[in-house]
Amino acid sequence: MGTGLLDAFAHEHKLLLDSELRTLVNKLDAPPIIKESMLYSLEAGGKRIRPLLLFATLDAFGVEPQKGLLAASAIEMIHTYSLIHDDLPSMDNDDLRRGKPTNHKVFGDAIAILAGDALLTYSFEVIGKIPPEIASDATKLKLVIELAKAAGTEGMVGGQVADMEGEGKSLTLEELEYIHIHKTGKLLRFSVLAGAIMAGATQDQLENLSAFAHHVGLAFQIQDDILDLVGNQQLIGKPVGSDTNNHKSTYPQLLTLEGATAALHKQINLSKKYLGMTGLNTNLLLEITDLVASRDH
Amino acid sequence: MGTGLLDAFAHEHKLLLDSELRTLVNKLDAPPIIKESMLYSLEAGGKRIRPLLLFATLDAFGVEPQKGLLAASAIEMIHTYSLIHDDLPSMDNDDLRRGKPTNHKVFGDAIAILAGDALLTYSFEVIGKIPPEIASDATKLKLVIELAKAAGTEGMVGGQVADMEGEGKSLTLEELEYIHIHKTGKLLRFSVLAGAIMAGATQDQLENLSAFAHHVGLAFQIQDDILDLVGNQQLIGKPVGSDTNNHKSTYPQLLTLEGATAALHKQINLSKKYLGMTGLNTNLLLEITDLVASRDH
Repeated sequence: MGTGLLDAFAHEHKLLLDSELRTLVNKLDAPPIIKESMLYSLEAGGKRIRPLLLFATLDAFGVEPQKGLLAASAIEMIHTYSLIHDDLPSMDNDDLRRGKPTNHKVFGDAIAILAGDALLTYSFEVIGKIPPEIASDATKLKLVIELAKAAGTEGMVGGQVADMEGEGKSLTLEELEYIHIHKTGKLLRFSVLAGAIMAGATQDQLENLSAFAHHVGLAFQIQDDILDLVGNQQLIGKPVGSDTNNHKSTYPQLLTLEGATAALHKQINLSKKYLGMTGLNTNLLLEITDLVASRDH
Repeated sequence: MGTGLLDAFAHEHKLLLDSELRTLVNKLDAPPIIKESMLYSLEAGGKRIRPLLLFATLDAFGVEPQKGLLAASAIEMIHTYSLIHDDLPSMDNDDLRRGKPTNHKVFGDAIAILAGDALLTYSFEVIGKIPPEIASDATKLKLVIELAKAAGTEGMVGGQVADMEGEGKSLTLEELEYIHIHKTGKLLRFSVLAGAIMAGATQDQLENLSAFAHHVGLAFQIQDDILDLVGNQQLIGKPVGSDTNNHKSTYPQLLTLEGATAALHKQINLSKKYLGMTGLNTNLLLEITDLVASRDH
């Protein structure tokens, strides 16, 4: 992925994150089956794009990225819980995720629901326990509040509700954007904001980084829809065209493939514009932005 | 319930809590269906025993109980989320709760799962937003961490997992207590601790109140099992003997009815012993303790 600079950075921090997640779950004093189920989905791989955004944001401020390990773990727990619950038979009813059987296929629906609940709950404890030399109480509380907003009804949960209500209907572009901005955008945005908050960003920087993350999030979704239409099934890990088969509205469907590609580039350009306004060393964030536009899975 | 003193206190604070919960959910900027689903279960009634414990603990310290309204709302959100998820077809598969159709019977499984997720998530935001004149940042962070521990795999979720794993098996008394201490005990204990933490309790007071809550929680469960065996179906809102029919292990089954009644009184006496060691004005907490032992639903 990307150039050598981002590759090495992403690889190193992914290993650290994987190890931190294992440690955090293993140390819980709880029935083994629930820890197994939590780890099964946490370790199912994935691009770890949210933690990467947080680490790269800290780097942009000249803060040691490893200071973000606990916050990044909390974010990945929230993301993973949302995948487990979304895959359930009463939700999207998916049997495969990243080429592996989904959590409920392995552990049953009840444990899958509880593993999601457990990851969601634990994420707030993990934020609360960031050591004082890394974040003050005020900073940690801000992270708790912003994470809850990004994950709750005004964020991810609200987006999932709108997504389900929109199934089988033709959505307007506005409705489609509401879904994406909430279902995935708010947590991506939090990943950037968390780094900025921890690094003591100014109000201006917070606003520019928030706008950056908003547009990167939309770019990510548009590219997702494009890949679903034209991508390679083996690379993306789910059947190509599955959104179309589920009668889900997509950007290419609403805008044509050419229109969707143009919208993707518009979002990428806006991302870079706001990034440029932060006055930070944003090399890694720029590379991630280019990666979103050019990724093939 | 109980004497006039507790009656009036419970009634007044239940009204305040109901109103606070409505306000908190109504102000969310989210799809209407998810707010409806959250409120449906929040307003399904119930004894509000957890908020009452918190209010009464604040009162014991001479702190205005209304200062606990947001913390009590967070606790009731967590309790309500756990009921919604526990009632799901893949969990306990209950159609009725407190005499009303369960959340998934009204809104469907998907919205019920999401309403539970939303309540769980929102509870941490609500704690985070307690005004600074009521709780310092350090106090709020302590509440976040303790609430997450009480609700997560080391608490409520762990207890639910153990409960499900134990179904259809004959449990030992030790296994039965593990389930109760975790599934319901930890959140009851948090309700007391939250009040104590907010009131600035000493370490000794925290320990004695923690022990008090532990024993009240066990008493509550033993009485639940006794009521399930001998209670009145209309008063308790679920079929009498439903635990026996589900082949769940209970105290009367393991200890005989006489043994369970003796165990109940032992737990009540221990509760009162630790309460007496706090040096606080514990009239209301004592009344709640007696109420647990003598309630008929």
